[in-house]
This record gives sequence, structure tokens and C-alpha cells, in this order.
Amino acid sequence: MRRFHQGLVLCSMAIVLSPVLDLEAKPVTVDDLLAGAPAADWRTPNAEDTLYLELPQGRVVIELAAAAVPQHAANIKALARAHYFDGLAIIRVQDNYGVQWDDESHQRPLPPSIKPSVEFTADAKAAKRFQLLPDRDLYAAQVGFLDGFPAARDPRTHSVWLAHCYGMVGAGRDDPAESTGAEMYALIGNAPRQLDLNVALVGRVLKGMELLSALPRGTGEMGFYAAGQVPTPINAMRVAADLPERERTQIEVLRTDSATFRAVLDQRRDRHEPWFKHNPGVIDLCNVPLPVRTPGGH
Amino acid sequence: MRRFHQGLVLCSMAIVLSPVLDLEAKPVTVDDLLAGAPAADWRTPNAEDTLYLELPQGRVVIELAAAAVPQHAANIKALARAHYFDGLAIIRVQDNYGVQWDDESHQRPLPPSIKPSVEFTADAKAAKRFQLLPDRDLYAAQVGFLDGFPAARDPRTHSVWLAHCYGMVGAGRDDPAESTGAEMYALIGNAPRQLDLNVALVGRVLKGMELLSALPRGTGEMGFYAAGQVPTPINAMRVAADLPERERTQIEVLRTDSATFRAVLDQRRDRHEPWFKHNPGVIDLCNVPLPVRTPGGH
Repeated sequence: MRRFHQGLVLCSMAIVLSPVLDLEAKPVTVDDLLAGAPAADWRTPNAEDTLYLELPQGRVVIELAAAAVPQHAANIKALARAHYFDGLAIIRVQDNYGVQWDDESHQRPLPPSIKPSVEFTADAKAAKRFQLLPDRDLYAAQVGFLDGFPAARDPRTHSVWLAHCYGMVGAGRDDPAESTGAEMYALIGNAPRQLDLNVALVGRVLKGMELLSALPRGTGEMGFYAAGQVPTPINAMRVAADLPERERTQIEVLRTDSATFRAVLDQRRDRHEPWFKHNPGVIDLCNVPLPVRTPGGH
Repeated sequence: MRRFHQGLVLCSMAIVLSPVLDLEAKPVTVDDLLAGAPAADWRTPNAEDTLYLELPQGRVVIELAAAAVPQHAANIKALARAHYFDGLAIIRVQDNYGVQWDDESHQRPLPPSIKPSVEFTADAKAAKRFQLLPDRDLYAAQVGFLDGFPAARDPRTHSVWLAHCYGMVGAGRDDPAESTGAEMYALIGNAPRQLDLNVALVGRVLKGMELLSALPRGTGEMGFYAAGQVPTPINAMRVAADLPERERTQIEVLRTDSATFRAVLDQRRDRHEPWFKHNPGVIDLCNVPLPVRTPGGH
């Protein structure tokens, strides 16, 4: 079967791992790297910081960046626990941009604990947790990862912020700058990095991204659903910790500070597979895979 | 209505166009810029280089980069005219990556005129047609536009190549490097620029992108449709010039060498709208809008 892209195949790791050059060995793929990763290279997201967006099509699992944007994470969890999102709908799907869900009518009262806030940059201790990538970036002086999320850093101010990459989830806002988290969006197109430092990103989709990205596009202005289009209802939004263990999605995320992740990055930056005739030698922050697995198989 | 992104609003063009500063004037949006563009800033794609991919959901209009990759364009038109694609199906939809259609069974003979070729870089005269952007790029020394398509250039070799941005269409290949165009794909996720100089891009989707990007994702390896999934059939692929005028889609594309396009670029690079609290001051090649309009309204 011919393919426009041969998948994730790289030159044999045997060349690295063994003094004997084994050019006939099966190429090592990212899947092979992941399969060979020690258990310690994987982490289980905190159930208290994991959201389940329950759609008729299935469950979307979102990890909140609770350390980076604590007020928004607290707000969103309070909203979920107040059943604020239940029965709302996905009201906007703009091609090559984003999927948005909120109370379009502004009828629902916000719980009194909700505090509008500005969290364009991460918490004060984020600079110490930031893991720098060696690769350049167009929008920021430095890029890398914060708590497993794609992020950027300004070396002069030491401020760190999450980056608008595919699958990231944010808190929509009007002008002024404050947001609550009651309006949420997920990014489904080419990374709109111009939004960095302009919106509070609150997490990312770990599983079920295709349930959002394959939704029918809205035909109204900016991808809002027009009259006659049927929005996708939100059955519920739940904090995973509030569900009994058996109803939770078993999920693990590759640690961005692990040796396996560094090997994945090396493989994706330098493409030595025979299929590649030109080696890019670089990787864009938003092209870095952030592997997730579901041990339970669902 | 609150939005996570206020659309395309910029400071009043009156400041530029009039000696009287009118700070109260309605902000000028990209839509306003386009509405005010002279007719000469728009071009009508050559019907001989326009493809209609006819799906049950509607028509996808593709402009071939016929000057940049003449052999692939000739091949694809010959295939379309031989009805090669008719009755085939979209067999792969990989989330955040691409949509692929071809003869999975390899049963269909290729017309004798089809020549496998390597067109990773554009035609020899492309360097003279290349329009340079001032913005930097991670994957190439220079980026800009070639014949209206996003492209990159190496100033040492003067070679130019099309860039893997959202909506671009390419010719899949196995290893070795040659491709015919009989396997086609369209990009539906974050720009996989690592494929630049590794695959022949052949054009881009001008209209109907959402018919491809919202297709159900394949659950098989690399997004291929698994057994039990119903691939989207291709009713036909046609060269627009072969249809009577009344059956063609009226379409116009903003010229990338026009003053209007430069104004759009300026607006998108420097975000002066009040909503933006941080001005990116830069734009990624694959975040540049390439406006299209359908004068007939369909």
C-alpha cells in the first residue's frame, strides 16, 4: 500500500545500542520506542485535574493545566461540579481554527466561587519547571514544555506561557482580558500561535480529539452554527475524580522529561528513514507528538 | 456574544488613507479590506488547472500548481480525464494530518501518458516568480508565495518548493521518490512542514475544505479506514475546463502580489485590535490567509 507518509520509522536503534552495526535490523519506530519505554516514563494524569466532556459521540478527555493556570482550573472544575456545562452545546466549529462550547444565551448563572482572572502567563514557579527545547520558534524566544504541555518562555522576564497548538483547550474571552473558563474552546487547525499571551489556555485534549475535529463546520460567521444547523449537545462535563474508578478512562501520558520522550523528539527532528529524502533537522513545537496511551484499551 | 477570538479587526484604515485622523471610525477588518479591493487584485484560476473532486457531500475545488509541478499536473489531469478517480474513495483520514484518496487495490491501470516523476522542487523559472515574505521560518531560509501558493526558497541554490500548509494537496509516494499523482492527499492539521522537499505538492483546496476536514477519522493504523468503516466515495474528479460554463464553480483568488494582500498580511502580522493584548509582530507562512471568494455565491 502506497502512502504519502511512511509513518514513524527511523534507522535501527541497534546502531546506537550495540557496537555491532546491524543494518539489516528492523527499523525502530516511535511505536517501538513507546513499547520499550519503562513504566516510569509514563504518568497518570491527576483525576482531580482531568475533565470528561461527554458528547453523544463519546467521551473527550481533557487534562487541565492546573499548576500553570490555577484560577481557571479551579473555575472550570467548580463549573463542572455545578453542572454548568451539562445540556449546553458545541455552538461553533470553525474550520482550521477551533471548536467552542459555552452558554450562548448567557442565561446560566455562574456559581459564586467563579473568579474572572487573567492567566495569559503561567504561575510564578513555572520558569523552574520549564523544559527547554533546542529548536527555534517564530513566536517566542524559547519553546519547550511545562507540566507536559507545549509552552514558551521569555528569558528576559522568565515568564512562561502555554502555546496554542493543535488539541490545546482555552478559555474564551471578550475584551477586557479576564476570562472565567465558562466559555471553552479546543484548537483543530494549524496552530494559531498569534493567540499566545492573548488568551488563557487551560489544558489539552488527551483522548477523543477526533470527536471534536470531525464535527460539521458552522456555516455562520466565524464558524458559529447558523439557524438550521444542529449543534452537538453536551451531555455532561465531569471531573474524573468525581466518577467511580470503574467509570474512569484509564490513561497515561509520556513524561516530557523522560529518556523515551527525548528519543521520540530526536526521531522526529532528524528523519533518517529511507523514505525521507530531505532531513528537516528541526521541529516546530506544535509538531512534537505528545504520546498518550490507554492501558485499558478504551 | 463572547468569543475566544474577535475575528479580523484592525485599526482604522482611515488613519492611513485620510490625512484626518478618525479614531472613532469603525475598525477595518480583513473582510473590509477584501470588500474594498479593486477587481484587478483578484484572479480567476485557469479552468484547465482547476479540479473538481465530486463527493456525495458536495464539490471540492482544487487549484493545481501547474507551473510549479508541470508533470504532476499533466498526470493528474490525464488521470481525471481517463475517469481514473471516479468510483474510488477516500480511504484514509488521519486526525491532525491528512485525507487520502487513491486506488487502494492497485487494480486500475494508469493511462500510458502518466510519467512517474520527482517534483519536490518547483520548475526552473520559479525563483523569479517567488514573492518573498519578510518573516522568518523554522524549516526554510526564506518563505513566501509562488503563483499564489505558500512556498519556500533556498537563496543559495535558488530552488523553490511548495510548503505543506493546511489545505495543500500532494501526490503520495512510496520509496523511491517518484510519484504519479494517482495517490492524492489534502492536509487537515497542523502544517507537517517536515514533509517539505519530500513529497510533490500539486496544489491546494480553494473551496470545500470542510468536506474533507470534517470526515470521520479512520480507526486503522495511520488513519486508514478499518474494516466496517464506510469510506467516502468519489463520484468523480473532473477538470473544470471540461464542464460547460454553467456547471463550473465561479471562484476568485486574491492575488498574492496585490496591495490588498499586503494589507491583509500587515493586519495579520501586527494585531492592533483592542482585543489583542500582545502583538505577535510576526506571522507563520502557514497562518497567512489566502482569500478566496465565490462571486456566484455558491
